Amino acid sequence: MKIGIVGVGTVGRSVVEILQENKEIISARAGVEITPVIGVARDIESKKDLDILLTTSIDELLDSDIDVVVELMGGVEKPYEIVTKALERGKSVVTANKALLAYHRYELQTKAGELGFGFEASVAGGIPIIKSLREGLSANHIESIVGIMNGTCNFILTKMMSEGAEFAPTLKEAQELGYAEADPTFDIGGFDAAHKLLILASIAYGIDAKPEDILIEGIESITSDDISFAKEFGYSIKLLTIAKKVGDKVELRVHPALIKNEKMIAKVDGVMNAVSVYGDKVGETMYYGPGAGGNATASAVVADLIDIARNGKNAQTSPMLGFTKPLEKNLSLANKGDVETKYYIRMNVKDETGVLATVAKILGDKDISIETFLQSPHTKKDNITTILLSTHSCQEVKVMEAFDEIEQLSISQGRPSMIRIE
Amino acid sequence: MKIGIVGVGTVGRSVVEILQENKEIISARAGVEITPVIGVARDIESKKDLDILLTTSIDELLDSDIDVVVELMGGVEKPYEIVTKALERGKSVVTANKALLAYHRYELQTKAGELGFGFEASVAGGIPIIKSLREGLSANHIESIVGIMNGTCNFILTKMMSEGAEFAPTLKEAQELGYAEADPTFDIGGFDAAHKLLILASIAYGIDAKPEDILIEGIESITSDDISFAKEFGYSIKLLTIAKKVGDKVELRVHPALIKNEKMIAKVDGVMNAVSVYGDKVGETMYYGPGAGGNATASAVVADLIDIARNGKNAQTSPMLGFTKPLEKNLSLANKGDVETKYYIRMNVKDETGVLATVAKILGDKDISIETFLQSPHTKKDNITTILLSTHSCQEVKVMEAFDEIEQLSISQGRPSMIRIE
Repeated sequence: MKIGIVGVGTVGRSVVEILQENKEIISARAGVEITPVIGVARDIESKKDLDILLTTSIDELLDSDIDVVVELMGGVEKPYEIVTKALERGKSVVTANKALLAYHRYELQTKAGELGFGFEASVAGGIPIIKSLREGLSANHIESIVGIMNGTCNFILTKMMSEGAEFAPTLKEAQELGYAEADPTFDIGGFDAAHKLLILASIAYGIDAKPEDILIEGIESITSDDISFAKEFGYSIKLLTIAKKVGDKVELRVHPALIKNEKMIAKVDGVMNAVSVYGDKVGETMYYGPGAGGNATASAVVADLIDIARNGKNAQTSPMLGFTKPLEKNLSLANKGDVETKYYIRMNVKDETGVLATVAKILGDKDISIETFLQSPHTKKDNITTILLSTHSCQEVKVMEAFDEIEQLSISQGRPSMIRIE
Repeated sequence: MKIGIVGVGTVGRSVVEILQENKEIISARAGVEITPVIGVARDIESKKDLDILLTTSIDELLDSDIDVVVELMGGVEKPYEIVTKALERGKSVVTANKALLAYHRYELQTKAGELGFGFEASVAGGIPIIKSLREGLSANHIESIVGIMNGTCNFILTKMMSEGAEFAPTLKEAQELGYAEADPTFDIGGFDAAHKLLILASIAYGIDAKPEDILIEGIESITSDDISFAKEFGYSIKLLTIAKKVGDKVELRVHPALIKNEKMIAKVDGVMNAVSVYGDKVGETMYYGPGAGGNATASAVVADLIDIARNGKNAQTSPMLGFTKPLEKNLSLANKGDVETKYYIRMNVKDETGVLATVAKILGDKDISIETFLQSPHTKKDNITTILLSTHSCQEVKVMEAFDEIEQLSISQGRPSMIRIE
């Protein structure tokens, strides 16, 4: 089986190297040899050491006699066009491009038809979460998916937890270590994780949604006060990607959350990823591993290639997203604001007698009951103190209403902020 | 697709119930309906509520027009005979029977040929570890597999760790709670875990071995002194199943081991299972979930049925063990005693001056160097004390030689014991 790679960067180079270095074991597993023959790169010169034909022309690759196009260029519309052309010419496709799938996965499932279409590398790098969800847990209705799927955010939050550090200097450190991009918005804003969540939600529920349809919050506003509260009450703070079935709705959301330290997923530190899936029959299973990196991502790309080789190019035996008829007909996407959970709330107020009573009354009037309470250990100037508290489960819309009222109080210093507790 | 179940017990009942309760989502994923039509049980009366034909005759099931035989009866030779007959009649097979596979997996791979043969449920219950290893990590040479694959042992060891309890009363408690069998030998002796290890080792390395070829030790001799030592030095004690490539040898072993608390697998508590796999390209990935229970095991059985339905009864696209040509031609099974690792050693000695020096000299003469040392906090009568120590990495054969010498000392109270440190 001959393959061509569009976008020979770090991952593309690893794909070529793995196919060459592990050639023998790969062909024992695939039943045929899988040979990288052509690659498209903008800068050919720096890839000259690779034993494949290099070109800057995508058409030259598409016109060649390759069986599979591996798309690793990134972006949305341009790769969509290329992948579409490849499928039209009867070539199978493997991609690591989560943005492409976040926007076009349903069209691509239709276009792929019987052709192989692998995208294991698009979610959680080297962890075979797509295969596990689509095939391994296929007997189950999926109750929830809770993931740590952005290594940059998890590295920063882990550092902040272990060192009590603030966000800005920790981000800077992550950038210096190569764990965060120069422009880190896509990662720390939660958008990267959201793309991955949408892909998993399609496999679990058949839900069609775009990034703009779902709740996405990043980790930029986490402070050392939040870290102190989390430590005091036995929580970790993680950027979670959550898909949760509640009645006939599916909540899809990406945001920082407090999780009890006893939960397995709370123990996932540094750049590692993990996805916990709760099935109605199997219960909880969790998948842990490296979510990024050239070799880890390429491991998933090559696994897809081996699957295609085994199944024959015209035999996509498992439908791309794992279903051929509507999966969960009665389920629809929940509204962004329709969340009901426990909350951790942080507010800056003047340190006056009766402040807590005033705040507690506003919360009580909205049916929000307080579970734990902590005054920040950090002293502030001008007699300002920080109140940290957690609530029992309540409606998020009520929390927002309470925040509106608290913000108007004369003792208040700006709007309170909150982190959801999962 | 029609299925018949040989052995309608807890798991068989769950298989029928899942296929009926989750019928709609299963057929959306499988592309066809999967219907349980017939079941063989010794005691038909207690299964009358199930909506399938019940019989005591295996031949009646094999003679029926079912497409797949689900074997859930347990044992080795009888199920081998039944499964062989099923394959000869062109029926696909799904089994949860690890003992059957520990002894006959290679013959069964040959007999299955193009027919579907699923056995996901045979290892780690509801965790899709076989699919992940065989397909998800197929681009990799597997460096090691380290698993906690027996819930009974992990429940007992977790209790002993958290309560500082001794083995015997904890086993009794596990039996009362239904987490251990009346005759617990198969679980606590490590044999159950060994069967699972052999299955995974075939997929990873193509290694053909039987239970009697590999090192198997149980957890019966773990004491509260061992627990104290582990706690003092930041270890957990787990019954580990280990497959490890060392040069051109593969070590396969099942034994209790000390693992540093920071490792993800050390955090797997109670009846839960986990398998950590180290691939040469992907690095470490870990799979966590329920290793037993009717619904969790049935979830894996039904996933196999869905795969067979998707692929068509005559299209085993992925070879049963994941390879069609020899996988790792240059690898062979290591000898049982050829282990080189770190050791924790426990010995009872008379509490006399110079005892430690004597012991240290014997160890030193065998090139065994001591890393940490602890005198047991438990006082013994008759002036007997317990010395607990850990070594740097050394050859197991040297440790055994040192034990021979120490056992002969006049100060010695029996042979020292050891637990490997991973």
